[in-house]
This record gives sequence, structure tokens and C-alpha cells, in this order.
Amino acid sequence: MIVVKIGGAQGVNLDAICADAAQLVASGQQLIVVHGGSAETNEISTRLGHPPRFVTSTSGYTSRYTDRQTLEIFAMVTNGKINTLLVERLQKAGVNACGLSGLDGRLMMARRKDAIRVVENGRQMMLRDDYTGKIEQVNSLLISLLLSAGLTPVIAPLAISPSGEALNVDADRAAAMVAGAAGAQQLIILTNVPGLMRSFPDESTLIDRLPKTGLEQALSFAEGRMKKKVLGACEALDLGVQQVIFADGRIEHPLQAAMAGRGTVIA
Amino acid sequence: MIVVKIGGAQGVNLDAICADAAQLVASGQQLIVVHGGSAETNEISTRLGHPPRFVTSTSGYTSRYTDRQTLEIFAMVTNGKINTLLVERLQKAGVNACGLSGLDGRLMMARRKDAIRVVENGRQMMLRDDYTGKIEQVNSLLISLLLSAGLTPVIAPLAISPSGEALNVDADRAAAMVAGAAGAQQLIILTNVPGLMRSFPDESTLIDRLPKTGLEQALSFAEGRMKKKVLGACEALDLGVQQVIFADGRIEHPLQAAMAGRGTVIA
Repeated sequence: MIVVKIGGAQGVNLDAICADAAQLVASGQQLIVVHGGSAETNEISTRLGHPPRFVTSTSGYTSRYTDRQTLEIFAMVTNGKINTLLVERLQKAGVNACGLSGLDGRLMMARRKDAIRVVENGRQMMLRDDYTGKIEQVNSLLISLLLSAGLTPVIAPLAISPSGEALNVDADRAAAMVAGAAGAQQLIILTNVPGLMRSFPDESTLIDRLPKTGLEQALSFAEGRMKKKVLGACEALDLGVQQVIFADGRIEHPLQAAMAGRGTVIA
Repeated sequence: MIVVKIGGAQGVNLDAICADAAQLVASGQQLIVVHGGSAETNEISTRLGHPPRFVTSTSGYTSRYTDRQTLEIFAMVTNGKINTLLVERLQKAGVNACGLSGLDGRLMMARRKDAIRVVENGRQMMLRDDYTGKIEQVNSLLISLLLSAGLTPVIAPLAISPSGEALNVDADRAAAMVAGAAGAQQLIILTNVPGLMRSFPDESTLIDRLPKTGLEQALSFAEGRMKKKVLGACEALDLGVQQVIFADGRIEHPLQAAMAGRGTVIA
């Protein structure tokens, strides 16, 4: 089984990804898709008069400040627009896709981080009323049920708290948790860069192979959004996933290339 | 099994509906929820600079003109916002809800009406590029799979064409098709009125009981949006559903009241 995380960044070739997915599924490969939606949420929330606000935690990770209104827009865009249109695109390519968010059947249970310590203008402060979560459990039974019915789950990055609240979760780390729970052999994280670079954005510094022991060091040089992918890779390997591949989602046959080892292979 | 259609009109008491749904599911009753989203789609599409346009067919039915941009907004709002937040509300009430649109697992297959004859300013004209469909088949296997896993399907009014396109479908008629395919005994259509009135909006003309043979006549006096509900009732009864109930979604215990025969019961 393979989990594919599709990033929402510009340049990612969805048609090529869906064509590859269709070939894989037709050959009997079980596939689970997880997607993000940050860029499109930013655009639509701005157009709706509620522009995004990003905060940096004291440990240096950037995340979306998610008040209730932002959460609802995030749900609308990721689970309504991106998920539905990705399911449509996969269906057109011949994949019997089934869209889900982590709320459906309590697919992804998360702990709400209701107070986060952030740094703004060099000063530490606590932010409350944030609807962001950290996934603690994935309902692998529901995933198995869908896969065994010949469906390909397509998962939006929303989770549910123990009390039933919708929460915004990081899509890369959600993909890692899903891959671990489902017993996937590979987690392929498709982005609009060729992989992890020692010195971003210099592509000549692309790292081909990285042992798990090199991940901690990678956290220090990974730029912005790549940091959470590295964290996700670490979590996936800890959960028994054999390979995590950071691969280029802009090329033709992006999945086949990633499975053949193109990109950054972490094992 | 009961199919409940929840309208998006103002005044509908979602908390009361979810509380009733939780009691029913806890008592072993299988439930399927279908919802609309017209009002909220109008609001958000207007805010996004693409206001809705309604057309009236030559046979007198009003529907949303759905160009591709409208379709994407409709998908975003109904499947992303309304569906996700309804699943959240049901989960909070203790119902293990699972949100779906008709694209997921090809749940609702529809024929695209790519050219519709409409009347505008008294003149007939053909509208093309419309992404509206008429459901022809419901994947009852997927519904059974979810129900037997203890999940309550919550369905957004989008269908899929044979070539894999997303289509806007009427939620009342979708509920009727789902009820028929799933072998439901009752279809409860909750709105913000007490039921079908012989002379809308005079509530003293509420019709308590209506035989199936009275439906054709009802089409002549049903006002605007009620017309399609009458059509849906007709279709559901044709498909073997025993009772269709038009009931008030604003009151406490709206489902229990409907099941006890409050509203317009058509059988």
C-alpha cells in the first residue's frame, strides 16, 4: 500500500498524478491520497474578507492561526473544493475515489492545541481559541473497509477532537499518521520542488538518499514548509513505514518516478 | 430505515434534528441524511463576485443555472461547509456520521442536462454549459457498507456523470432516489414550514394526509420550492418508499414529531 500526499502549491501536475494513480490502482496497488489546501484557503479567505494569519511557534514551526471562522473557511475550501474536485479528477481518470475528512467516521482523532505559545515581533505570547490539532489516532478500520470495497480514499486535512470539534491539522503529518495506521510501505510526498535540498532553493544540493538518523539534522536546514514534511517523515518511519519519498509533483509520471527512487528517499 | 432530508432554509433547528437523530440511531434505527445548501451557496457566491442566476424551465420548475464556476462554488459550500459542519454537529450529538457527495464511490450517478429550455422575460431560450443533472442510479452497496459499519451517511447534493463530471442535483429528488435505492420505509423532508399547504402561506390550509393519487393535483398548488418536493415524494413512492412526510424542521423533536405523523403524510 502507498500513501500519496499531494501538495497544493503552484505547478503540481494533478492530471499527471491522477493518470499515474489510475495505472497503479489498475495494476492492483492500493492507494490512499491525502491533500492540503493552504494556498487556496489563503486566497478564498482573503476574498471573503477574513485574510489568513500565520504564527510561528517558539520551536520555529509556522502554522495557520485558526479561529472558528478560519476553520469554517478551511473546511469549506479543503473538504469542499479541493477534495471534491480531486475526487472528480480521479474519477475521470478511472479511479473510484472516495473523499473523506477526518471527521467522517472519526477517521482522524486529534488533540486540540487550544493554547499555543507563539513568537510575534520577537515577543512570546499565548494564542487561544485556536482550532488546530495534533492527530493521535487514525481509524484504520474505515480505511480498510473502503479499500476492500475497491475505493481509493482521498483525505482532507481536518480531524475531530474527542468532544467532536472539527480541527485543522497539518496535511503532511496527517499523511504520515495515515500511512502508519494503514501499514503502508511507502509515503510519497509530492511538492513543487525536486526533493529536500541541503541549501534551498539550490537544486544542485538535492539530497538523494537520507538515512532516518539524518532527519534530525535535516530539520535544521529544511526551509519553512519543508520542516513539517521532515517531521512527518520522521513520524511515518517511527510508525513502521519503510520509505518516505519527497518527490517532484510537477513532472510527467510523478508517482512512477518517485517509486523508482527519484527525489529524496528516506529509509 | 429512514431517510431525512434537511433543508437549508432559515429557522431549521439543526441542534434539535441532530439530538433526535442521535436518539433514533442509539435505538437501533438506521438513518441516512441528505441536505441542501441553496441559500448558503447564494450568499457565498455573491460575496465571491459570482451571484446566482435562477432559471425557470418551460414546465415551470425553477433551478440554479450552474456554469462551471457556479458548480465549483456549489461543491465548496454544500460538500465543504454544510456537509462538514453537519457531520461535526452530528458527531457532537453522538452520531458517527460520514459525509459523502454523489461523486464519492460514484454514489449518485446522473445524466447531465447539458441544454435546458428556459423561459426568460416571456421568451423561450436554450441554455448550454449547465452542470445540472438528473440522478439515474444510486450506489446502494456503498450505503449498505457504511450503515453496516455503524456509520450514518450524510449526503451532499452533487452527482457524477458517466464521464466523471461533477453535477449539481436537486437535494429533495436526491433524497427520494436515495430512499428508494436504500429501501427506506420513510422519507422525511424537513423544511421551515409545517408541511404542504393548499394555499401557501396560510397554515390553516395545511394538508394532513395525502394519497399518492393526490400528488399530481398538489403539483398545481405547491408554491416554488415545494414543487420539487412534491415531485420527489412522487418519485420516492414510485420506488417503493412507504411514506413521505413533509415536516416542520423548526420545532423541538422534529423527527419524532414527523414519525408520529405531524406534517403532511403522503402514502
